[in-house]
Amino acid sequence: MSRTQPFSREDYQVFIPIQTRWMDNDVYGHVNNVTYYSYFDTAVNQYLIQRGVLDFTWGRTVGLVVETGCQYFASVSFPDALEAGLRVTHIGRSSVRYEVGIFKSGDATTRAAGHFVHVYVDKDSRRPAAIPAEFLTALEPLQIKTDS
Amino acid sequence: MSRTQPFSREDYQVFIPIQTRWMDNDVYGHVNNVTYYSYFDTAVNQYLIQRGVLDFTWGRTVGLVVETGCQYFASVSFPDALEAGLRVTHIGRSSVRYEVGIFKSGDATTRAAGHFVHVYVDKDSRRPAAIPAEFLTALEPLQIKTDS
Amino acid sequence: MSRTQPFSREDYQVFIPIQTRWMDNDVYGHVNNVTYYSYFDTAVNQYLIQRGVLDFTWGRTVGLVVETGCQYFASVSFPDALEAGLRVTHIGRSSVRYEVGIFKSGDATTRAAGHFVHVYVDKDSRRPAAIPAEFLTALEPLQIKTDS
Amino acid sequence: MSRTQPFSREDYQVFIPIQTRWMDNDVYGHVNNVTYYSYFDTAVNQYLIQRGVLDFTWGRTVGLVVETGCQYFASVSFPDALEAGLRVTHIGRSSVRYEVGIFKSGDATTRAAGHFVHVYVDKDSRRPAAIPAEFLTALEPLQIKTDS
Repeated sequence: MSRTQPFSREDYQVFIPIQTRWMDNDVYGHVNNVTYYSYFDTAVNQYLIQRGVLDFTWGRTVGLVVETGCQYFASVSFPDALEAGLRVTHIGRSSVRYEVGIFKSGDATTRAAGHFVHVYVDKDSRRPAAIPAEFLTALEPLQIKTDS
Repeated sequence: MSRTQPFSREDYQVFIPIQTRWMDNDVYGHVNNVTYYSYFDTAVNQYLIQRGVLDFTWGRTVGLVVETGCQYFASVSFPDALEAGLRVTHIGRSSVRYEVGIFKSGDATTRAAGHFVHVYVDKDSRRPAAIPAEFLTALEPLQIKTDS
Repeated sequence: MSRTQPFSREDYQVFIPIQTRWMDNDVYGHVNNVTYYSYFDTAVNQYLIQRGVLDFTWGRTVGLVVETGCQYFASVSFPDALEAGLRVTHIGRSSVRYEVGIFKSGDATTRAAGHFVHVYVDKDSRRPAAIPAEFLTALEPLQIKTDS
Repeated sequence: MSRTQPFSREDYQVFIPIQTRWMDNDVYGHVNNVTYYSYFDTAVNQYLIQRGVLDFTWGRTVGLVVETGCQYFASVSFPDALEAGLRVTHIGRSSVRYEVGIFKSGDATTRAAGHFVHVYVDKDSRRPAAIPAEFLTALEPLQIKTDS
């Protein structure tokens, strides 16, 4: 399951700029391992909000995170400018697997690469809900042809 | 690789209390998926510091995180009191795999369960370093007999 | 307005333990100035929830923060155990000024001392609301006789 | 000391873009009061690093934060794009008072306005150090003629 090699830009479909913060650096002077997950969260949710399919105040459907993971290939540090590459590698009836690669801006290969799996549930009942059609349309630009 | 069932208290060797914070809750009123990783970091490093084998200011050896992951079984929220159960499931020449289960205090099963893999490197050369003997001694109480 | 001297334990009415986290330390190896504010938030809200007067999911009244501030007298670092001393120095019709001192556990004087001002508003109209009677009762143990 | 009115763009000298993150929103759906301080930290340190006068790994001089404060006029929320306006209102022998206004991009007035006071100390002795000449040069573009 673990890769020994980083991913490259061609492995991702859409790129979102990510700004590092002073507090992202830990005592060793590099972005802490935890912080990458806040980049993933930000990149995917920003994409979904900009596509008009995520409304965390009024939406009927909530994306629950059921699994996340990350591999770290090389460090980044504030004030590096970063890019998050996005792709979707699996879509089920009510779940989506997003994969996110973190690049230092302009780099060819990932410094870190992670994933997270959303299960979409009804806001009130918390039962899994079929992914709405317009949501599936918004995910199309992120989909890759074959699973990696 | 993914489990469908949470872990139980018997699966962990040592427990560290974790205090939730107001900011841990996200817009849905539950601890955000990212924050669990800061619990993992805190629990393992607190254990190592208390055992006297991690000194992030003066130590010669630094633990680089090369892989992390988490599964989420049920939510927790501030101001819940939590416990982090720790265990070590693999020790290599210069790497350790820690597994951490997050329990609401008193619960029998994990709300979330994750892992992270440390590779120990020399602070200056950043080359992998053999884990020192006293460090191995400190890990003994965390080890379980068989890999899960 | 700025003090040159830290506060002492006698200046506070109630103490809440605060656990530091690995990520609280910044690149200089000390808790970052930002993080103290998350201690303030946590200490005050934990106190209010435990007294049964803050329910952020169902409550009709929301505390908006309109002003915060902090002075830093000496550093703390993960894994220090801390205590937050609380007091209330002003109560208006719809506002409360909380003051919070951060002590390393057992210390006589504050490492940092801050304040924040809550204005209580109706959750829907966002207009200032008179502080309910039971809330005032909950604040009584925090009140000091004279402003400092 | 507290203002009842927000500041305007003309009150600041230099603007730094700030990207919000999913985790910045708290349970009420707005950026948490604590998070603004991480914007301040990021904006000022990014400015100083880009001007070549802050090197947190090799620099001889460290900026210790001795006082911070913030007033909140109106909320912002992820995924809002923000700008941090910077100005310096006081320079002493070894201290600088930075003021930072947070604008929603394109807005005429601040959503929040804060300050922080750095005292520059020698990295090893932790004694206050005179601000170096090149540092003073880097601060010139931030200085306003009169205190507000």
